[in-house]
Amino acid sequence: MDPHIIEVPLEKSYRLINHGPTVLVSAHHNGVDDVMTAAWSCALDFTPSKLMVVLDKITATRTLIEESGTFVIQVPCAAQLKMTHFLGTHSLKEMPDKLEQAGAELFRVPGHSVPLVAGCTAWMVCRLIPEPHNHQAHDLFIGEIIGAWADSRVFRNGRWSFETSPPEYRSLHYIAGGQFYAIGESLIVPDVEA
Amino acid sequence: MDPHIIEVPLEKSYRLINHGPTVLVSAHHNGVDDVMTAAWSCALDFTPSKLMVVLDKITATRTLIEESGTFVIQVPCAAQLKMTHFLGTHSLKEMPDKLEQAGAELFRVPGHSVPLVAGCTAWMVCRLIPEPHNHQAHDLFIGEIIGAWADSRVFRNGRWSFETSPPEYRSLHYIAGGQFYAIGESLIVPDVEA
Repeated sequence: MDPHIIEVPLEKSYRLINHGPTVLVSAHHNGVDDVMTAAWSCALDFTPSKLMVVLDKITATRTLIEESGTFVIQVPCAAQLKMTHFLGTHSLKEMPDKLEQAGAELFRVPGHSVPLVAGCTAWMVCRLIPEPHNHQAHDLFIGEIIGAWADSRVFRNGRWSFETSPPEYRSLHYIAGGQFYAIGESLIVPDVEA
Repeated sequence: MDPHIIEVPLEKSYRLINHGPTVLVSAHHNGVDDVMTAAWSCALDFTPSKLMVVLDKITATRTLIEESGTFVIQVPCAAQLKMTHFLGTHSLKEMPDKLEQAGAELFRVPGHSVPLVAGCTAWMVCRLIPEPHNHQAHDLFIGEIIGAWADSRVFRNGRWSFETSPPEYRSLHYIAGGQFYAIGESLIVPDVEA
């Protein structure tokens, strides 16, 4: 595993997506890997750590998650702009070599069979919490975070350091039609009482 | 109503929060107004337009939403940094003049009794979709967006214009402990095929 990758305590893992980045969702079942992009995802609980993500019924990644009960939510960065958009606009169903064409490289962490996308800045392995109503009515999938890692060059001591790291590490925030915003300036509230 | 405020077509309203900003949640019941900050919120559907937000059981705003069935999700901006943090770290239950102390000014739009927070850059009036399991088990509230507006100085023609607007209009993205990031640079995917 890349020596820059450090483990993140589960109770602080919400901070990896608290700022609302567009994420990559990866999954694996029966020898098939897939990765898709999702803009609709956010944290759901601190302890146990949970998150949620919206996965359309037409996506191949959703099927892998329903079959395997496991998925990864990871945070892509500005260096992966084109790949992030490609993974969100092409389906494994029509393009069997989607991951190769996207230039997505996968790796595994010990103890988990689900693939992680190399070059991202944070990763959360999740166990699907089965909730048929949320899946069917809302395309909404809730996961318990069972492992979290980050690239220490841009996340350490429980905090992002976008403001002091190279701009290619910044998270991506999708709007529509191929337009993203990178995360920007750090703003600290003066005289924080809380 | 402020002449800069324009209506946003409901089918494009997801773009107001697609980039994952921290939001303000406002509600009203029986003569009581409240506003709280929420970092865990995202879009859920295009048509009909829906969004979701996580509201802790201890919050007074949640009670108003459960009683009235209506709420507003709005996007605060960098000029409202201190107010946004204050509204997320103080409760109406302990501070009856919370809104005054926060410096939050409210206004109404015709046809809706729920209050909107002045100075934000986008507003979505939502009708609560009652889902007791999601409320109780996950503190998760789903709303159908029934009205959407934005400040045309920073959102027009269905797009944010952060990159060409004054920095005080930028959206806020919370991490923890009084630290936010402002949204940053616009990144356009080259050669978009989709």
